[in-house]
Amino acid sequence: MGCVTLMHGCVIITMDGEQRVFKEGGIVIEKDQIKAIGHSQQILSDFSHVADQLIDLNGHILLPGLINTHVHSSQQLARGIADDVDLITWLHHRIWPYESNMTEQDSYLSTLLCGIELIHSGVTCFAEAGGQHVSGMATAVQLLGLRACLAQSTMDSGHGLPSSWSALTTHDCIQSQKDNYHKYNNTAQGRIRIWFGIRQIINSTHHLLLQTRDAAAQLKTGIHMNLHNCQHVAEIPYENQLVADVHKVNHGTVTYLDKIEFLQNNLLAAHSVWVDDNEISLLSKAGVKVSHCPAAAMRMLGFAPVKEMLEAGICVSLGTDGAPSNNRMSIVDEMYLASLINKGREVYANGTTDPTALSAETILRMVTVNGAKSVLWDDELGSLEVGKKADIVVVNPSSWSMVPVHDCISNIVYCMRTENVVSVMCNGLWIMKNKKIINVDEEEVILKAKQASSELLKRAGIKLPTRMNVI
Amino acid sequence: MGCVTLMHGCVIITMDGEQRVFKEGGIVIEKDQIKAIGHSQQILSDFSHVADQLIDLNGHILLPGLINTHVHSSQQLARGIADDVDLITWLHHRIWPYESNMTEQDSYLSTLLCGIELIHSGVTCFAEAGGQHVSGMATAVQLLGLRACLAQSTMDSGHGLPSSWSALTTHDCIQSQKDNYHKYNNTAQGRIRIWFGIRQIINSTHHLLLQTRDAAAQLKTGIHMNLHNCQHVAEIPYENQLVADVHKVNHGTVTYLDKIEFLQNNLLAAHSVWVDDNEISLLSKAGVKVSHCPAAAMRMLGFAPVKEMLEAGICVSLGTDGAPSNNRMSIVDEMYLASLINKGREVYANGTTDPTALSAETILRMVTVNGAKSVLWDDELGSLEVGKKADIVVVNPSSWSMVPVHDCISNIVYCMRTENVVSVMCNGLWIMKNKKIINVDEEEVILKAKQASSELLKRAGIKLPTRMNVI
Repeated sequence: MGCVTLMHGCVIITMDGEQRVFKEGGIVIEKDQIKAIGHSQQILSDFSHVADQLIDLNGHILLPGLINTHVHSSQQLARGIADDVDLITWLHHRIWPYESNMTEQDSYLSTLLCGIELIHSGVTCFAEAGGQHVSGMATAVQLLGLRACLAQSTMDSGHGLPSSWSALTTHDCIQSQKDNYHKYNNTAQGRIRIWFGIRQIINSTHHLLLQTRDAAAQLKTGIHMNLHNCQHVAEIPYENQLVADVHKVNHGTVTYLDKIEFLQNNLLAAHSVWVDDNEISLLSKAGVKVSHCPAAAMRMLGFAPVKEMLEAGICVSLGTDGAPSNNRMSIVDEMYLASLINKGREVYANGTTDPTALSAETILRMVTVNGAKSVLWDDELGSLEVGKKADIVVVNPSSWSMVPVHDCISNIVYCMRTENVVSVMCNGLWIMKNKKIINVDEEEVILKAKQASSELLKRAGIKLPTRMNVI
Repeated sequence: MGCVTLMHGCVIITMDGEQRVFKEGGIVIEKDQIKAIGHSQQILSDFSHVADQLIDLNGHILLPGLINTHVHSSQQLARGIADDVDLITWLHHRIWPYESNMTEQDSYLSTLLCGIELIHSGVTCFAEAGGQHVSGMATAVQLLGLRACLAQSTMDSGHGLPSSWSALTTHDCIQSQKDNYHKYNNTAQGRIRIWFGIRQIINSTHHLLLQTRDAAAQLKTGIHMNLHNCQHVAEIPYENQLVADVHKVNHGTVTYLDKIEFLQNNLLAAHSVWVDDNEISLLSKAGVKVSHCPAAAMRMLGFAPVKEMLEAGICVSLGTDGAPSNNRMSIVDEMYLASLINKGREVYANGTTDPTALSAETILRMVTVNGAKSVLWDDELGSLEVGKKADIVVVNPSSWSMVPVHDCISNIVYCMRTENVVSVMCNGLWIMKNKKIINVDEEEVILKAKQASSELLKRAGIKLPTRMNVI
């Protein structure tokens, strides 16, 4: 590919400040950036002579690269190992043994496999929720051509942890993350950033939280934290209760985090399901970002007050969580789910569903501009505008799953499936074209991942009960 | 294709009474029926010599054809015309004008387009919820090679109906359905059956209900009814209240229907969201079948007590509803949704989500054996057993969306997407092979459907507001 690419003859949903949608649009990419955007005819007339490549997109739809703000890339090899089980089984007998037995190579393969699924669902940038072997993740992200904010799974306390983890001190936790930062931040042509991670509050000492806050501030990077996970008991508001008891605050985690000045605008809080009005207000005032993961929440946590958080001015984006929590790692499906679940949730809030809640436009903002703000990268990502990075998704709206398209914004949110995502560009380079992943051999990754995951389960001693009568 | 086909080397999830799953299975199809099923080696050794065709399925998964028990095939051309709007707008300003302006050709094209989507999602049999021009539907179903229980949209009363509909008498409604029955029942090599339809109770007189009950009993066929739809007010339990007031019963529709002896085992009731314990018991005792449509319910109605209904012994199956209610007509997505929504719903029922609610096995039964019972066809459909019809889905579990497969039952329910459905056989004939629809030209149907739907919207005077800033 030459260094100037001109694409024309497409619908362009820019997601810019004016919400412009070009019915018949054109866009010019120079190196890793968007150089021009506008009506197809104008773009062709102004830039045809300088373009190394002209692509007629023939009615396809262009979107900004989608941003998935809560991904456990280390957990991809664990898909299906913890379905239909209670929370104790999920965490203590499946996920912790699995993660604590991962090698760097496992993490690399898991992130490759996860990345392939992310790309197929139109994702160009993801926020790692905190996993094993940032080195393995970074190598995979670099190779795939994706963009990511990577974080390490970080815990310095708590019951029932595997021994290799419980041996870690607060200092170890902070130091290894600083090392990761210095080694990998701004690598892969600037596509990789390193964040700090907090796995969950009940596995964090006071010291870990404070030192994380200060280290992230010093390095001017973000913190990715799971809020309102639960553990040990099959009762969702448990974390809140525990935190209120231990730290003497009147409501749970958020109130406590406010008290220790942990709530800052570089904090990305996943889930945030069990928050009250006061906590919503605290999150909003502090500029904390929330990653809403509708599928995982439905299965494990409950219904987040997304409409209320958006109305309070909180930047809410969407995430898939990890493969053993969801199990589809598709932001396309999460768009559909986020809309349905939050329309339905109104039954409980107000006695009736509200089909107008979380409109298609709102959902699209969540996976683009809000995603970009959530990963602290909105100066370069989240919309198709001159000067921003060329992270672009090409959608084919002419197949059986989307036609007829009377309203393309609505059909993208409510009808589009991963099948409609045909090509994906990140940082000015195609990472998937006509459904083919460009930088790795998909078949080979799948084969290696299958093998590695079987071996990992054996090593971790995880045995799944057989369903039905297998003969 | 010859008349004996042998497929081997595949996982076969039979869904038979013993819940057998063959890890390495084989199946023999003779004409439209399953002649043998068992271990691959045994099947090969016993039947290779009589097979006209041997197919090595190389690790693919075989399932019984999925059954979608609530489909508005007439509404496929209306996808996206009524998103993010309240119920009055949805019904009076979008759906009724659309449906009342449909021609027979529109209905034919709509059912073709809908059928293509159903086949791509592994459906071999569907229950039409009641739509326009059964003649058009029947022609499309015959051509596609699908199996269906078709029904006409039937209403003989109610406010705000388009004039062409409000002119119909109870007699007209019953007579035209009887005519459809005599014309189309048991046509298309026995793949088409004709049922009676009741659009919703608030558009039905007492006479219509009683005459429908008696006519269906006389012709030994089923009745497909929308239960707990709502109308005119944005309040879900409205239908219940109206029915209780008008018919002097202590709770809503189900109590009333019991009183008039409408609840019989040939009744397929869609939605059934707002039912109390007593009504669940009435439905169960009468052998009424319930079609749970999770996506449409989340958007418009609320959360059906599915776990409670299953525990009460009610046969609950899954449906997609229509394209303007959902908007994905994919039973594969409904499996995923049904599980998530009902795990999440437990928060409201019991204060915590229940990740064990509606297990993968339960969901699979809902779309196979329960589906077959719901369409009164379980003597021939719903499981892969000798003597049953050869309605079969071939799933490729080796792509990025499903690997690794540690638990194939679970991955089918929680990970599988329409992308993984590669081939579909109905009545012993392939209707999709390697993602290609066999009996119609998919591209041509899409083109014609696009054009017909634009013209229909114009004719019906339906104008959609523009979203965002389209230039």
